[in-house]
Amino acid sequence: MDSNVSEFAHVPSRERPLVYVGMCCDPLHHGHIALLVRARALGRVIVGLLTDEAIAIYKGTPLLSYAERQTVVAEIRGVDTVVPQRTLSYRDNLLAFRPSFVVHGDDWRKGVQEATRQEVIDLLTSWNGTLVEVPYTQGCSSRALRARIRSDVER
Amino acid sequence: MDSNVSEFAHVPSRERPLVYVGMCCDPLHHGHIALLVRARALGRVIVGLLTDEAIAIYKGTPLLSYAERQTVVAEIRGVDTVVPQRTLSYRDNLLAFRPSFVVHGDDWRKGVQEATRQEVIDLLTSWNGTLVEVPYTQGCSSRALRARIRSDVER
Repeated sequence: MDSNVSEFAHVPSRERPLVYVGMCCDPLHHGHIALLVRARALGRVIVGLLTDEAIAIYKGTPLLSYAERQTVVAEIRGVDTVVPQRTLSYRDNLLAFRPSFVVHGDDWRKGVQEATRQEVIDLLTSWNGTLVEVPYTQGCSSRALRARIRSDVER
Repeated sequence: MDSNVSEFAHVPSRERPLVYVGMCCDPLHHGHIALLVRARALGRVIVGLLTDEAIAIYKGTPLLSYAERQTVVAEIRGVDTVVPQRTLSYRDNLLAFRPSFVVHGDDWRKGVQEATRQEVIDLLTSWNGTLVEVPYTQGCSSRALRARIRSDVER
C-alpha cells in the first residue's frame, strides 16, 4: 500500500520531518492505526499520549493507565517516540517539538475540540507546519466501545 | 532490553524458527504486547487471531470484528503474519504451520483451557516444538476490561 511507504524512507532519521499525533489509546483500536499509517508516511512520528489526568477532564478515568497505554502504542510500526501530553491543548508539546505536521481525525472540526483544533492550526502556521486531517473511522472511539459493552451488559 | 533483541536477527527470514501465538485482541492491550515481545525474540511470529465465531463460543460476540482486530495486531513490531484461528483448539493451525514454538500466557494451566493446552503440548512434541509460557499480565483480559467499564456504568 502506498500509504505504508514513507516518502522519506531514504532520508536519515534526524533529517525527516517531525509528525505529531495526539491520542488517548484507551484502548488502541483500528482508528488509531489509520492515523498512524498516515503519520508515518509523512515522517518521524511522535505520539503525544494524553495523561490519565488529561483524559479524566473530558471523559473520566481511563480504562488503562498511561504506562499500560504507552506500552502498546510504542510497539506500533513507525512510532518513533511516545511523550506525555498533559493537557487537552496541544500547545506545550507543539512549542517543544515544533513538528512539521500534526495528524488528527477530521471529527474535531465542530464541538468541544473546535478551539483546540484552531489553536493547533495557529501554532503550526507560525512555523509553516501543516495540519493533516484523516477521515474519521466511525464507531471505534473509546466512547463507542464503552457503549458496545454497555449494551452487552444491559441486555 | 534483551527480550527485544532476537537471537535470530542475523538469520534470513525464511530460515528463522516459526513462532505461533493464538490471541483474540479484543481489544489489544499491554498483556498481548508482553507475549509478542517474547515471541519475536524467538523467531518469525504468526499470530493466530481467533475469528468472531471462535470467540463467540466462549465469551460472546467480540467488541471488535476480525477485520478491525486484524488491522491492529498486524501493525505490532515483529508480527510477520496474521492468520485466522477458527476454533479454540490450535490443532488445525499447528498442523498447517508446524511452528517451532507456541507462546501463551501461563494462565491456561488450570480451567477451561487446560485440555487445549495439553493438545498443544502433544502436537508440538510430535515435531520437537516447544511451548513457551509467559507470566500472565494481571487485570487486562478483555473480561477484566469489560468489568472495569461495567463498574463505571453501574456506579
